[in-house]
Amino acid sequence: MTTVELIETSGGIADCPGYKTAGVGCDIRETGDPRLDLALFVSESPCSAAGVFTLNDVCAAPVHICKAILAESGNKVAGCVINSGNANACTGTQGMVDGKEMNAITQLATGINTPFLVCSTGRIGRQLPMSNIKAGIAAASQKLDTETQSSFDAADAILTSDTRRKVATARFNYEGTTITVSGMAKGAGMIEPNMATMLAFVTTDLEADSDLLKSVVKQASDLTFNRISIDGDMSTNDTVLLFANGACGIKADTSPELLEAFQQAVFLVCDDLAEKIVGDGEKVTKLVELIVEGCQTTADAEKIARAVGNSLLVKTSWYGSDPNWGRLADAAGYARVGLKEECFDIYYDTVAALISGRPQDSNLSKWKEIVSKKRFRITLNLNQGAGQYRLLTSDLSEAYVDFNKSE
Amino acid sequence: MTTVELIETSGGIADCPGYKTAGVGCDIRETGDPRLDLALFVSESPCSAAGVFTLNDVCAAPVHICKAILAESGNKVAGCVINSGNANACTGTQGMVDGKEMNAITQLATGINTPFLVCSTGRIGRQLPMSNIKAGIAAASQKLDTETQSSFDAADAILTSDTRRKVATARFNYEGTTITVSGMAKGAGMIEPNMATMLAFVTTDLEADSDLLKSVVKQASDLTFNRISIDGDMSTNDTVLLFANGACGIKADTSPELLEAFQQAVFLVCDDLAEKIVGDGEKVTKLVELIVEGCQTTADAEKIARAVGNSLLVKTSWYGSDPNWGRLADAAGYARVGLKEECFDIYYDTVAALISGRPQDSNLSKWKEIVSKKRFRITLNLNQGAGQYRLLTSDLSEAYVDFNKSE
Repeated sequence: MTTVELIETSGGIADCPGYKTAGVGCDIRETGDPRLDLALFVSESPCSAAGVFTLNDVCAAPVHICKAILAESGNKVAGCVINSGNANACTGTQGMVDGKEMNAITQLATGINTPFLVCSTGRIGRQLPMSNIKAGIAAASQKLDTETQSSFDAADAILTSDTRRKVATARFNYEGTTITVSGMAKGAGMIEPNMATMLAFVTTDLEADSDLLKSVVKQASDLTFNRISIDGDMSTNDTVLLFANGACGIKADTSPELLEAFQQAVFLVCDDLAEKIVGDGEKVTKLVELIVEGCQTTADAEKIARAVGNSLLVKTSWYGSDPNWGRLADAAGYARVGLKEECFDIYYDTVAALISGRPQDSNLSKWKEIVSKKRFRITLNLNQGAGQYRLLTSDLSEAYVDFNKSE
Repeated sequence: MTTVELIETSGGIADCPGYKTAGVGCDIRETGDPRLDLALFVSESPCSAAGVFTLNDVCAAPVHICKAILAESGNKVAGCVINSGNANACTGTQGMVDGKEMNAITQLATGINTPFLVCSTGRIGRQLPMSNIKAGIAAASQKLDTETQSSFDAADAILTSDTRRKVATARFNYEGTTITVSGMAKGAGMIEPNMATMLAFVTTDLEADSDLLKSVVKQASDLTFNRISIDGDMSTNDTVLLFANGACGIKADTSPELLEAFQQAVFLVCDDLAEKIVGDGEKVTKLVELIVEGCQTTADAEKIARAVGNSLLVKTSWYGSDPNWGRLADAAGYARVGLKEECFDIYYDTVAALISGRPQDSNLSKWKEIVSKKRFRITLNLNQGAGQYRLLTSDLSEAYVDFNKSE
């Protein structure tokens, strides 16, 4: 089997041959803040693309526009233009006009006669400041290059309340050729599967048709971005896009081994970005890996994981380093999948808190120690079947409330 | 139509003829705290009773025991004994033994050879301190009387993190006889319909068979206690019990007019107690009445109300007096009932924030004023049907997180 490895120090999209990137500031928030807020990346030749999008009924204009561009272009695009600071959501027909205009402006500014996908993230309900956007796209088009710094600028420009840049790269060797999958993402608030105000952009130098990309990005997202939760709020703009430009000269589906390695590489990049999103969630102090197993179905396991992972009482107790397993049991019970108390086990890392419904009080000091760590695992085993689910979640701090009480 | 009125200054269960009450402290928390933590009330003659209980898969011992006692006794009971400080939940077979023992001890101590219902609230996962419980029941049995102070002691003894006693009384006149419905409740944390760590006890001096009581308590709970939410956590112990002792000499179902007045009185008492529970939610600073209308079905309206009312981003913005309607729209959208953005209206009290999907920015200062109040109303109208739902909810404060980070 081909070994696929995550690179320790990712340079983001610049790691992937055949893509140029840029990030600039154009004051999209209209506050005079000099922060970077517009990112652009371009493939040297038109690339295949596919995406997964928010399932929210209230869908931002760029989500509609991305879907339309992919359909109209036969999934062949030049790259993507992204702004932060304004979500272009709940902006009506003007929002649609402005989002389409972003694509048109980018084609003009870059001189590339192939459509660009368009993404936005930020405040809901305000019209885009189009003259700033126009200036930003013009500046970014001039700065496009293959340097890591440009790729970092792009990764910085898509952030909102994130505190850290999120990039990841995986590589593998296939018949003497190095193949790269790299990506960048933003997260922070409104993080809950299906997706969250979460944007992720993954590029590869493999050649792949869009049907294959669609299935790979869907599968990887389901296993990674859709299994994280910070605050349970699903956003209007969530988008994961996968681009393939064929710069390495090899087609992804020419062998089962290659395809498997590609899927693994996309999974590793998405998984790394997803974990970075939770770890940098708004005012998160702890990362919790929640494993639910022994359920009758996967769907049951997911229900329990989401009930527990989104419970305010559970999350605040993690924040307080309080090994309050009673709140875990309560939340697992209100998922209402038919949990049998007398079969129910709870573990903090590998230390039992509850076995067959009986508290293991002698372990109390160990639970306390584990729940005081920055990252720990909780396993809930219903012992009623083979269904399981893993959710990466976080605590809830006073600082989260303070941070979100106004915008 | 008979006029049913809520009494301005309720004395709790003492307002209802034929019931005696007591509240004592017996250190159930085993911390030496002198607070009242055991309540007892007794009907002068065996009374009919019916209840609605938590739907949580993890169900506390007293919930199982209440159901069994009602079934075995033909719904005829002497009254109820309640402790706070310990939920007797996740306590296995010992918990069942102890809960049943509470009934037996109470019968012995009062000399009444009719079963008592048993309720507990407090910390999950600890065995009841039975010697303290025994001492408490003995003391309470000695103190039983019809005075308001005893009724207040009982109402105080059932509280956990509540800051205020919650009592309510409704009265009406039927053919020259005054009929009373009175009650007491506790709430504070884990408040979410179906029910929440929420106990409520409602008494009447009407005579009624248990089938009628069942339907009346179910209907009233659905319209009141099941339509409040503080933190979205459903508890293991939630119970609403309705008792009828017939002390007024009139049977509830002898006329449609009487029955309607009785239903209305129970509704008013439950509604008042429910509002008091939300108003005294853990570290709540604002009470928000959320009206969702224009949905295709009631179920759709409820989904939106719960998504919005439980959204952390929405609740923190209320706390910060930030009229962030974008978060309302986002949460309404992820309820995924097929909301059409172009038909969607949002109002703060009577002031429009969004009409047909278009922001009404000129009203911004008015929204700000409304969301700064201690109590306000938000109306979401989908304009897609006749389904509607009302949810009473609250903001989320930093103090909530601080309060719940350890127990």
